[in-house]
Amino acid sequence: MSDAPRQLSLNLFLHPAGHHEAAWRHPSSSPDRIYDADYYVQLAQRAEAAKLDAVFFADGPVLHRGVEFNSVGHPEPILTLATIAAHTERIGLIATASTTFYEPYNLARLFATLDHLSHGRAGWNIVTTAAADAAANFGLDAHPDPEVRYARADEFLRAATRLWDSWEDDAILLDREAGRYADPSKIHAVEFAGEHVRVAGPLNVKRSPQGHPVLVQAGASNAGRDFAARWAEAIFTAHQRLEDAQAFYADIKAGAHRHGRRAEQVKILPGISPFIGSTEAEARILERELNELTVPEYGLRQLGTLAGVDLTGLELDAPVPLEIFSGAGDVTDNARSRLQVVAGIVERERPTTRELLHRLAGARGHRVVAGTPEQVADTIEEWFTRGAADGFNVMPPALPAGLDAFVDHVVPILQARGLFRTEYTGTTLRDHLGLGRPANRYTRERAEAELVGAGAGAEGGVR
Amino acid sequence: MSDAPRQLSLNLFLHPAGHHEAAWRHPSSSPDRIYDADYYVQLAQRAEAAKLDAVFFADGPVLHRGVEFNSVGHPEPILTLATIAAHTERIGLIATASTTFYEPYNLARLFATLDHLSHGRAGWNIVTTAAADAAANFGLDAHPDPEVRYARADEFLRAATRLWDSWEDDAILLDREAGRYADPSKIHAVEFAGEHVRVAGPLNVKRSPQGHPVLVQAGASNAGRDFAARWAEAIFTAHQRLEDAQAFYADIKAGAHRHGRRAEQVKILPGISPFIGSTEAEARILERELNELTVPEYGLRQLGTLAGVDLTGLELDAPVPLEIFSGAGDVTDNARSRLQVVAGIVERERPTTRELLHRLAGARGHRVVAGTPEQVADTIEEWFTRGAADGFNVMPPALPAGLDAFVDHVVPILQARGLFRTEYTGTTLRDHLGLGRPANRYTRERAEAELVGAGAGAEGGVR
Repeated sequence: MSDAPRQLSLNLFLHPAGHHEAAWRHPSSSPDRIYDADYYVQLAQRAEAAKLDAVFFADGPVLHRGVEFNSVGHPEPILTLATIAAHTERIGLIATASTTFYEPYNLARLFATLDHLSHGRAGWNIVTTAAADAAANFGLDAHPDPEVRYARADEFLRAATRLWDSWEDDAILLDREAGRYADPSKIHAVEFAGEHVRVAGPLNVKRSPQGHPVLVQAGASNAGRDFAARWAEAIFTAHQRLEDAQAFYADIKAGAHRHGRRAEQVKILPGISPFIGSTEAEARILERELNELTVPEYGLRQLGTLAGVDLTGLELDAPVPLEIFSGAGDVTDNARSRLQVVAGIVERERPTTRELLHRLAGARGHRVVAGTPEQVADTIEEWFTRGAADGFNVMPPALPAGLDAFVDHVVPILQARGLFRTEYTGTTLRDHLGLGRPANRYTRERAEAELVGAGAGAEGGVR
Repeated sequence: MSDAPRQLSLNLFLHPAGHHEAAWRHPSSSPDRIYDADYYVQLAQRAEAAKLDAVFFADGPVLHRGVEFNSVGHPEPILTLATIAAHTERIGLIATASTTFYEPYNLARLFATLDHLSHGRAGWNIVTTAAADAAANFGLDAHPDPEVRYARADEFLRAATRLWDSWEDDAILLDREAGRYADPSKIHAVEFAGEHVRVAGPLNVKRSPQGHPVLVQAGASNAGRDFAARWAEAIFTAHQRLEDAQAFYADIKAGAHRHGRRAEQVKILPGISPFIGSTEAEARILERELNELTVPEYGLRQLGTLAGVDLTGLELDAPVPLEIFSGAGDVTDNARSRLQVVAGIVERERPTTRELLHRLAGARGHRVVAGTPEQVADTIEEWFTRGAADGFNVMPPALPAGLDAFVDHVVPILQARGLFRTEYTGTTLRDHLGLGRPANRYTRERAEAELVGAGAGAEGGVR
């Protein structure tokens, strides 16, 4: 621990046209550019100029419903971030990928490569994929239960971290004179055999600059929380209220402690979607403009899917019927935790259906704030200093305009208050987040075996 | 068909330190840079300046044996090519990936994304992975037989091409005023259900600039040839002699014809590894320098693996014992076809074991030529004009020096002879290779149904 004051972490959450569901209809977005590499490169360069920790890109291996009314579908994140890596120097690159629908060998290889190509800026947002219709894209008759998905995810991480360690850091000799490229005793078969995952190894790429990519996780279900406490180095989460965020923060830090980890090894980063104006009224006008562009048919379909009920034809200007939330039998664990957030809003505020749809249109259950740059900065500072957040995943309502407003007007205030860096102090994503580089398990085992004296404890090398 | 003279296709085959197995030991290579994005970007920029069709990157999901003596292990190709795409404008980008060890949905998404990010320059070198020890990296007890691998590959391609077509080219409306992003009747479930592959679709990315990435194939086994005749738009192949290359060329073109394809829709591109000197003697000195850097222990192990016999301790300066090629019972179909090439060399030339190992060290069974730029150009022209090749996959013995020699000295001769372009005439890899953009099958079905008059033939859209 250094004596420097604790600093915020801030990520830009990339989302094709922006995080508001009607972003693509608003003149401040560029939906015609969402398949264009330059679009994402320019957003990342703006974020890097503001010294943000990382860009983050969500994903799922299925076309989400509602393409008639919303700009769903977008380039694959890992490749998009490789393109961004080629045109940036410092900013972290966090891509989402599913442990349920990828093979560990392939995915470990992709993230190790991204870490090499970016000189140590890769992060992996680990998801198990809640969307049930993804299963049919992978030859499965039914979507695996959350328990099965998280059991596989745990084995996947155990296998992947071994693969990332399979080359010790000093395995490559590059001895041209003697004709020895590598020391085979420092390249290890991993021989991981679990119930869901089996991998022999070694990986076919040397250990990457960060050792392991930064491990990020976003599930808020109970199974997700336990997985996060065990594995995650950063957690993206959704909370509407300070007290809920504080409870989650305390729960995760305690869970990490139970797994033998220090609290500061897990960064908690709620989503925040800021509408920014030179006055609060101006910010609210922008929010209303976007809300009025929503298509109620789309919003009802999304909410109905979340609640597991058909809401077609629901009266928009009457209060939300509370019974929508009572059934909810056949929804996923993940959907249930998001549904609880929505039910909380309805119980506290008793909105009309139209008002609720507008509320949800903002950022899919994440916190929406509208105000001046100072007001947005105040909110960020409050959550940061009151045990609710270590930083934020910033979700601009529309891109690129919403990012410009945040980096031009909010970031300088946070910097002036001493809460956020004015220059990068390191080169890797681990540096930005204050996370250590993981020791190589095989090197550690060798050292431990040598301490014991026998010298026979480390697993033998291969090839 | 245009009246322009037939033009060579030339690709740069990227291989970490170069294609000669001792390349990493030679001062003209840069093995310390093989995990560095800039290294690959600079090689591709040199190839682009010479107007080459594409860069090509081989791969397999396993660490090949021999890391003690050779620079095996390298970054994942699709990501590396995405990085190259960010710093080039025209050159094609062909990555290798395995149908045996990838999921069709994931891989179709990656290649569609590479095609978007590069504005239409993606190619996929389709392999089924001959290396038997890859299976253990994917939880399999045994490596699938070639028949099973190619049966899966065929289904994989049928599923992937449907996924790439699942958005019709005009599916996106982007009608901000009406709030309609896409026409759901033009986005299709693919509902592919085979014995090895099942995919529901649609893909979660719109149709890419080339429609489908260029489909490339490299297997020379019988199963591989039939697959290639059905699917491949370009074929990478290995031949030592003109007459063998001519026979292969005729066989593949005839096979394509049987599958209802025109001969010019399949480009045949043998590998060629040129040692280039200002005199032939100088070229041979370079070749000898590299051969003398080989490690016999490594070469014997590689040859023994290919032949399925243990060659440890074989006398290096005695003639190769012919009986090592007689057993060869337990080798793969793919290994057998490579082994036939090696047996042919031994029967014709009766080399010592050391001489054979040097011969194989050059480019793993591909053709090695040593000579002046004119001599190398003569060889290329002869094969091109005598029905043995539509172009070449250029395999520099050491990188970057071997590439510099080829583009600085051989390419200008081929250009002066009118055999190779002096400027790109198109922007996509399909343009460079003279391949058409595939029609979208759902658009075609709709048009056919409308011709029939019922208007009910095209499959309905989704979402």
